[in-house]
Amino acid sequence: MSAYEDLMAFQRQTEALAQVAGRLGWDQETVMPDGAAGQRAEEIGALESVLHARRTDPRLGEWLAAAVAPDAVGEAQLRQIRRSYARTMKIPARLAEEIARVTSLAQGVWAGCRAAEDVAGFLPTLSKVVELKREEGAALAAGADPYDALVDDYEPGMTGASIAAMFDAMRPRLVALRGRVLGAAAPHGIVGTFGRDDQLALTRELATVFGYDWTRGRVDLAVHPFSSGSGQDVRITTRVNEVDPFNCFYSTIHEVGHAAYEQGVDEAYLLTPIGQGASMGVHESQSRSYENQMGRSRAFTGWLYGRMREVFGDFGIADAEAFYRAVNRVHAGYIRTEADEVHYNLHVMMRFDLERALIRGELQVADLEGAWNDRFRADFGVAVDKPSNGMLQDVHWSCGLFGYFPTYTLGNVYAGCLTKALRADIPGLDGMMAQGDVSAATGWMREKLQRHGARYLPREVVAQACGFEPSEGPLLDYLEAKFGEIYGV
Amino acid sequence: MSAYEDLMAFQRQTEALAQVAGRLGWDQETVMPDGAAGQRAEEIGALESVLHARRTDPRLGEWLAAAVAPDAVGEAQLRQIRRSYARTMKIPARLAEEIARVTSLAQGVWAGCRAAEDVAGFLPTLSKVVELKREEGAALAAGADPYDALVDDYEPGMTGASIAAMFDAMRPRLVALRGRVLGAAAPHGIVGTFGRDDQLALTRELATVFGYDWTRGRVDLAVHPFSSGSGQDVRITTRVNEVDPFNCFYSTIHEVGHAAYEQGVDEAYLLTPIGQGASMGVHESQSRSYENQMGRSRAFTGWLYGRMREVFGDFGIADAEAFYRAVNRVHAGYIRTEADEVHYNLHVMMRFDLERALIRGELQVADLEGAWNDRFRADFGVAVDKPSNGMLQDVHWSCGLFGYFPTYTLGNVYAGCLTKALRADIPGLDGMMAQGDVSAATGWMREKLQRHGARYLPREVVAQACGFEPSEGPLLDYLEAKFGEIYGV
Repeated sequence: MSAYEDLMAFQRQTEALAQVAGRLGWDQETVMPDGAAGQRAEEIGALESVLHARRTDPRLGEWLAAAVAPDAVGEAQLRQIRRSYARTMKIPARLAEEIARVTSLAQGVWAGCRAAEDVAGFLPTLSKVVELKREEGAALAAGADPYDALVDDYEPGMTGASIAAMFDAMRPRLVALRGRVLGAAAPHGIVGTFGRDDQLALTRELATVFGYDWTRGRVDLAVHPFSSGSGQDVRITTRVNEVDPFNCFYSTIHEVGHAAYEQGVDEAYLLTPIGQGASMGVHESQSRSYENQMGRSRAFTGWLYGRMREVFGDFGIADAEAFYRAVNRVHAGYIRTEADEVHYNLHVMMRFDLERALIRGELQVADLEGAWNDRFRADFGVAVDKPSNGMLQDVHWSCGLFGYFPTYTLGNVYAGCLTKALRADIPGLDGMMAQGDVSAATGWMREKLQRHGARYLPREVVAQACGFEPSEGPLLDYLEAKFGEIYGV
Repeated sequence: MSAYEDLMAFQRQTEALAQVAGRLGWDQETVMPDGAAGQRAEEIGALESVLHARRTDPRLGEWLAAAVAPDAVGEAQLRQIRRSYARTMKIPARLAEEIARVTSLAQGVWAGCRAAEDVAGFLPTLSKVVELKREEGAALAAGADPYDALVDDYEPGMTGASIAAMFDAMRPRLVALRGRVLGAAAPHGIVGTFGRDDQLALTRELATVFGYDWTRGRVDLAVHPFSSGSGQDVRITTRVNEVDPFNCFYSTIHEVGHAAYEQGVDEAYLLTPIGQGASMGVHESQSRSYENQMGRSRAFTGWLYGRMREVFGDFGIADAEAFYRAVNRVHAGYIRTEADEVHYNLHVMMRFDLERALIRGELQVADLEGAWNDRFRADFGVAVDKPSNGMLQDVHWSCGLFGYFPTYTLGNVYAGCLTKALRADIPGLDGMMAQGDVSAATGWMREKLQRHGARYLPREVVAQACGFEPSEGPLLDYLEAKFGEIYGV
C-alpha cells in the first residue's frame, strides 16, 4: 500500500471511532439512565484518549510527508488531515488534557450558577477556562492573534478582523431595521394549548417535508435540540412546549437542516476527512435557511397554517397572512436562542466582541458582567434583569467554545447568499412551497452544496454554489424586504 | 506507579472501551436506523481493532510479569487478566480476524437460510465456521482437547468430560420425568388477547419487583430479549406477543436476573476485570432462578394471577392453582427457547453432544442434519418437520459460539443448588413471594453471589453461596417434586 492508502485506512478508523464518540453523546442526552453518569465519563475519557493518541500518532507525520494524492479529491483529503494534525500537534498534551477536564466540570458549574443566578460563583471557573483558551490560542497562533487561531478551528479561513469588518457593515442596517419594526404595531400571536402527541406527529411530518432521511436517522426528545452524527446515522432531537408549538416545529426544521447536510454528503466520502460539513458557518447556513428562508417564508407558512388548522383547529389566527405575521413576530428579548431573525445577529455580534476582547486580554473576566450589561443596554435598549437573561444564558464559554459564536451570524450571511442564488435558479419556488413541497429548494442545496461535504473550503463552496462571492448584502436585503413589508416600515 | 497500578489503569480503559462496544450492540438492536448498518459495521470493526490491540499489547506481558497484587482481590484481578491475555496471545491475529469476519457474515447467511428452510445453503458457511473454531480450539488447547479449550472460554474450570458426566447423570431422570408428565392430562392454558401497553406496564412492574435498578438501566423493545452492559448501565430488552403475555413477562424476569447480577456487583469493582459475572453458567443461574424457581413458583404465580386479573380481567383461568398449572404447562416442542423446564435441558444436552463431536472431528458438518434429526427423534419422540424447527433454529453456531450451549444447563444446575440453599436460609420465602415480594430472594442472591462478580471462580462462588459443592441433584429433585405434584405423577 502507498503512504496515501495507509494514511486513508488509518484515518477511516479514526473517523469511525469519532462517530462512536459522537453517538455516546447522543445516548447521554436521550436515553442514558441517570445513574450511569460516572461510568459514562470514564467511557468517554477512554475513547477520547484513544482518539487523541491516533490524532497525534507519529505515523501521521510520516505518511503526510510521503503521501501523494491520486486526484483533486485526494488533495482535499490530505488538506483536511494536515490541518487537523498541525493543530493537534501544536497543543501540548498537558494543555489538551486540562482543557478537557476543566471544561467538562465547568458545564456543571455553569448550569448550577445559572439556576442560582450566581455570577460570582461562576467567575473563578470561567477565569480558568479563559486562561486555558488564551494559552491554547497562543500555542496555535505562534505569535499571531490567539482569537484568530480559535476562530479558525470552527471556520477555516476567517479571522477576527474579517468577521469584525463584516459585522461592522451589518450593525447599522440591523439597528435601523430593528428601530423601525419595534416602532410599528406588533402582529397577534397564536393562542391555545397544542397537544404534545399532535405536535410530535406534525414535527415528524415537517422533518419528512424538509427531506430528512429516516432510514439514516431518528428523532428523539432531549432537553436541547441538536443534530448528531455523519453519514448513515444522523440523529436529531426536539422538545415540546404545549403553549409554543413553533419551538418544536422550527427547532426541528433547523436541526433537519444540519442533518440533511450530513446526510447529503456524497456517499463516496463516507468516513473520510471530507465526509462531513465544511465548517460551522456553512452548517448554520443550512439549518438557518431551512428554518427561516424556507420555513418562515410566506409561501411555506401558508401551507403550515392549513396543516395546523387541520390538526389543532382554531388558535386565534384568522388567515394565512395573519399566520405569516405571527410566525415572524419581532419582539425584543434577552435570550439569543429565542430571538427572531431581526434581533438574532445583534446577540451574536455582542458575544463576538466580548469573547474576542477576553481572549486578546483586552477584557478581564471580572469585568465581563458589566461589559455585557452595558453593551446589552446600548444595543437592545433595555437593562438585563438577571444573570440567566444575561451573561449566564449560553453554555458555550463554559465549554471553552471561544470563536464559535460568530459562525452563527456567518451562517445567516451564507444563508442569505444561498437563498438569493436559489431563488434566481428556481423562479417557481414559492408556488411549490405553498403546497408544502420544499424539495426543489432542499434538492438545490444538496446538489449545489451539501454533497461536497468538506471537499472545498467553506467560503469557496458557498461561492461556487451561489455563483458570486458571499457578502452580508443579500441577508440584509432579505431582512429589510421581509420585515419592512410585514411591518409596513 | 507500580506495575500493578499501571496494569490496572490500562485495564480500566480497556473495560470502559468494552462497555462502549457493548452499547453499540444495544444501539444496533434497539434504536439504530436500518440504513446505518454499513457504517456501523465499520464503527464496530474500528473499536474491536482498538480492543484487540489493547488485549495483545506487549506491555501487558511485562506488567503481568512484574505485578504484585496488594491483596486477595488484587490476586483475582491478576488472575482474570492473565487468563484473558494467555488466551488472546495463543490465537494468531490472522485467525482472530478471520473468525470475526466469517462469523459476522455467517449470521446473515444463517438468518436467510433459516427463513428459506435451506440447510444446503447454510452448510458451506457452517463448515467454514467449524473449521475455524476447530483451529482456534487446537491453538488454545496446545495438544489437549480443542472442545475443552472452547468451553473454558465461557465456563472456566469445566471440561467436555466433566459436563458429559453431569449430563449423563441427568438424562435418565429427565427422560423418565418427561415420560410421566406427557402421559398425564395437560392443564388448560390461558385464552385471550392481552393488550400491548398493558403487557408493557405490567412488565415494568415485574422488573421492579425483581429488583431491577432503573436508575442504572432501561427496558426497550427488540426482536430478541437480551441484557447488555455492566456496572452502572445495564439495559434489557423485551418483546410483546398479544396472545402470549408469558413470553414478555418471563423473558423480562429472565433478563432482569442477568441484569441484577451485573448491577449487583460490588461498586468497588466497577470497570475492573472482576467487575462482571463470573461465567455464562453462573449468569444463567441468576436468570433462570429469577425466571423459574422464583417467577414460576406457586407462591409468586399466586400474586401474578391476581395482578393479571386486575389488568386483563378474565382470561379463562378459574383460580390461582389453575394459573400455576397453566404457567408451568409441559408440552413437547421443537424449539429450545420456547421449551418448558422439563424439556429445556434435553435440548441443551443434544446440542452439547453434537457440537462437541463437530469440534473433535467425530462428526462432519455434512452429516449434522441427519445426526440432529435422529437424535431429536430419539430424545423427543417426534420427527423434525422443517429445518427451522431443527438444526437451523439457533443462531449460536453461525456466531462461532461452540462450547456455549452447555452453560445453559449448567446454569439450571447452579440455580437448583442456589435455590435449595436459599430456601434453607429463608423459610418464610413463599409467604413473602405470595404477596409479590421477592426481595428476600433477590437480596440473598445479591449478598451471597452477585456482589462478588468474578472475584471467585464460577464453581467456587456457587459453592460458597450454597455451603455445599454444586451438583445436578437439587435441580432434578426440584423438577421431579414440582412437576410430579402438578401432574400427579
